[in-house]
Amino acid sequence: MRTTVGIIGAGPAGLLLARLLHNAGIDSVVLESRDRSYVEQRQRAGILEQGTVDVLRAAGAGARMDREGLRHDGIELRFARRRHRIDFPALTGGRSVMVYAQTEVCKDLIALQLKEGGPLLFEAEALEVEGADTDSPRVRFRHEGREDVLECAYVVGCDGFWGVARKAIPEELTQVFERTYPFGWLGILADVAPSHDELVYARHDRGFALLSMRSPVVSRLYLQVPEGTDAEAWSDEEIWDELERRFETADDWRLARGPVTAKSVTPMRSHVHEPMRHGRLFLAGDAAHIVPPTGAKGLNLAVGDVVTFARALVHQEETGSGELLDAYSQTCLRRVWQAERFSYEMTTLLHRPPGATPFEDRIQLARLERLASSHAAEQDLAEGYTGFALE
Amino acid sequence: MRTTVGIIGAGPAGLLLARLLHNAGIDSVVLESRDRSYVEQRQRAGILEQGTVDVLRAAGAGARMDREGLRHDGIELRFARRRHRIDFPALTGGRSVMVYAQTEVCKDLIALQLKEGGPLLFEAEALEVEGADTDSPRVRFRHEGREDVLECAYVVGCDGFWGVARKAIPEELTQVFERTYPFGWLGILADVAPSHDELVYARHDRGFALLSMRSPVVSRLYLQVPEGTDAEAWSDEEIWDELERRFETADDWRLARGPVTAKSVTPMRSHVHEPMRHGRLFLAGDAAHIVPPTGAKGLNLAVGDVVTFARALVHQEETGSGELLDAYSQTCLRRVWQAERFSYEMTTLLHRPPGATPFEDRIQLARLERLASSHAAEQDLAEGYTGFALE
Repeated sequence: MRTTVGIIGAGPAGLLLARLLHNAGIDSVVLESRDRSYVEQRQRAGILEQGTVDVLRAAGAGARMDREGLRHDGIELRFARRRHRIDFPALTGGRSVMVYAQTEVCKDLIALQLKEGGPLLFEAEALEVEGADTDSPRVRFRHEGREDVLECAYVVGCDGFWGVARKAIPEELTQVFERTYPFGWLGILADVAPSHDELVYARHDRGFALLSMRSPVVSRLYLQVPEGTDAEAWSDEEIWDELERRFETADDWRLARGPVTAKSVTPMRSHVHEPMRHGRLFLAGDAAHIVPPTGAKGLNLAVGDVVTFARALVHQEETGSGELLDAYSQTCLRRVWQAERFSYEMTTLLHRPPGATPFEDRIQLARLERLASSHAAEQDLAEGYTGFALE
Repeated sequence: MRTTVGIIGAGPAGLLLARLLHNAGIDSVVLESRDRSYVEQRQRAGILEQGTVDVLRAAGAGARMDREGLRHDGIELRFARRRHRIDFPALTGGRSVMVYAQTEVCKDLIALQLKEGGPLLFEAEALEVEGADTDSPRVRFRHEGREDVLECAYVVGCDGFWGVARKAIPEELTQVFERTYPFGWLGILADVAPSHDELVYARHDRGFALLSMRSPVVSRLYLQVPEGTDAEAWSDEEIWDELERRFETADDWRLARGPVTAKSVTPMRSHVHEPMRHGRLFLAGDAAHIVPPTGAKGLNLAVGDVVTFARALVHQEETGSGELLDAYSQTCLRRVWQAERFSYEMTTLLHRPPGATPFEDRIQLARLERLASSHAAEQDLAEGYTGFALE
């Protein structure tokens, strides 16, 4: 098999990239190790930044999102039994975010790709990227029981943290930046209308909690739990009781309960792999960087990466200049590090680490007080949450 | 001896309080354990916030400050060989700071007090505060070789971190919040014109450095050094060489050297004592809270405390209501914790702790990049630096 851009991974990064290239008249092949149903069902992110929304619309993939997605103009910070709303449009000159689950983005992009785009192979497991630093990189992969080779002009690794693409960058050229957090998120999906119409980020002495949603009738809720917690160790009732405690307010706000349909624990990690490019191999999304979910940045960063790659390749096709492709890693990393910073600051603002000192507790509360009393501090947060500009 | 307000300590807090009370027609006695020359010479802070400048002027103690102080409209952040100026008036609606050393503030206030005010006893060592929770608190002190008692309606402890006032608050009513930092500041005074007309805060892989000044011909410079460093272990030349490295820029900026006239190491500590009031004993300034010097907040917090106390006492004299006195601790602590937060954030923004991970280094640089590219982030910093409002 032969194509211009070999894309490893049919998550939102790989699928959107295939769409962007298709729209620019550049052919690609997408290899995905899982089957379609897995890709369409795995629970991940749910918050699309303004820039991501704009990109999906411009790519012709925004129709259902615009019908079914929930535009959110703010979030609520909850601490010391107080409630403080951050008003995004007022603070950012009109920007907002969209609640629309990653599963739905993937379904939309898969449907488009199968209808109009190039090959998208499910259960096609990439084994290795070869010749990344040559003019003809190749992806060896296994599909329908036999090994095959995809010959490419460029390979883009959108295959996540555990993928093979990253391994093709020699270790001696690589620098890894990492932080793990001594807590995770116990997340549930519940068939109940969300108890608040915007996301609620709660800082509590017992730990962080997040109220989110997937639709007007499905709630998504999270609890900070110790690292390594087994989701099954928590009964549904214990989860609701704990959520209720952490969302407590001074007013008569109440948390509505409903049947829990999914329950899992997400570890928390910050990770950056530099560089994001080696020869004709480019890394995008989780293959290059992980953020803790507190800032809702993971999916949006992946979108930024593939937009940057697609623009750079189009620039090369149109002008013959490889300068944007050469600058890919640097261009992405500026945005990535701002998102890493934002995610780290949101995480440390809201989570209570084990062994937190009384001084650290007070500093955390003072940071929240500052947000509740300073327009500048609120604006800084709102700009970060609604997203950093794509260059 | 008998007075309305017994003030322990003739640092800027105690001296300013005596002045504010004198202006309001309330008598006080100041007890200071050191001699006048010590108080007038000890090197401390040098940056007065806009609010502190306003208070000193309104108290009739601003004449020489206005003649000799240096109004500063910004600071420079230096990192990765780049220079970024924070423009205070543009970001805060006209606020600025004044470079005028604490020694000079003390000299001015002492001169006023001796000319117009009530008793100010030097070499009068407070030994104990008695009866803080009664209607007639007393300060036992030693002066000119014999013990005496100062009978008061109120006692204000402005006697610093090591003073006796704090000890009169029962331990079981007290909560202490503390953080020590694994580094200190090696500071020098040098007879040379400052190499930049505003303060320069430098973040460098080798550690933090600060360029400050006391006057147009005297520079004050600091280097981050490991905790417990002996100032004498550094020769003057080694200090200048290290300063030069840490202030490096991509342009042709140069650090001018001159004779070093003083050299010392300051430890870095955050500390808050709650509550700041017990009965008729009130704590002000370093007696209640310490900040690391990075945010230039120590002296300004002390001024905020005594202004709050003086207003509360005047309110009581005028209306008979003790509500402001009762709220003293709470009112001060809101401001104190914002200053603690700001000082902590400035410290972690600019210092390189021993054992910093590559991830932490990048987050620090991303925080500085954010300041250099976001008006909101700059504004947040500028508001914090020029000072939090006095309630």
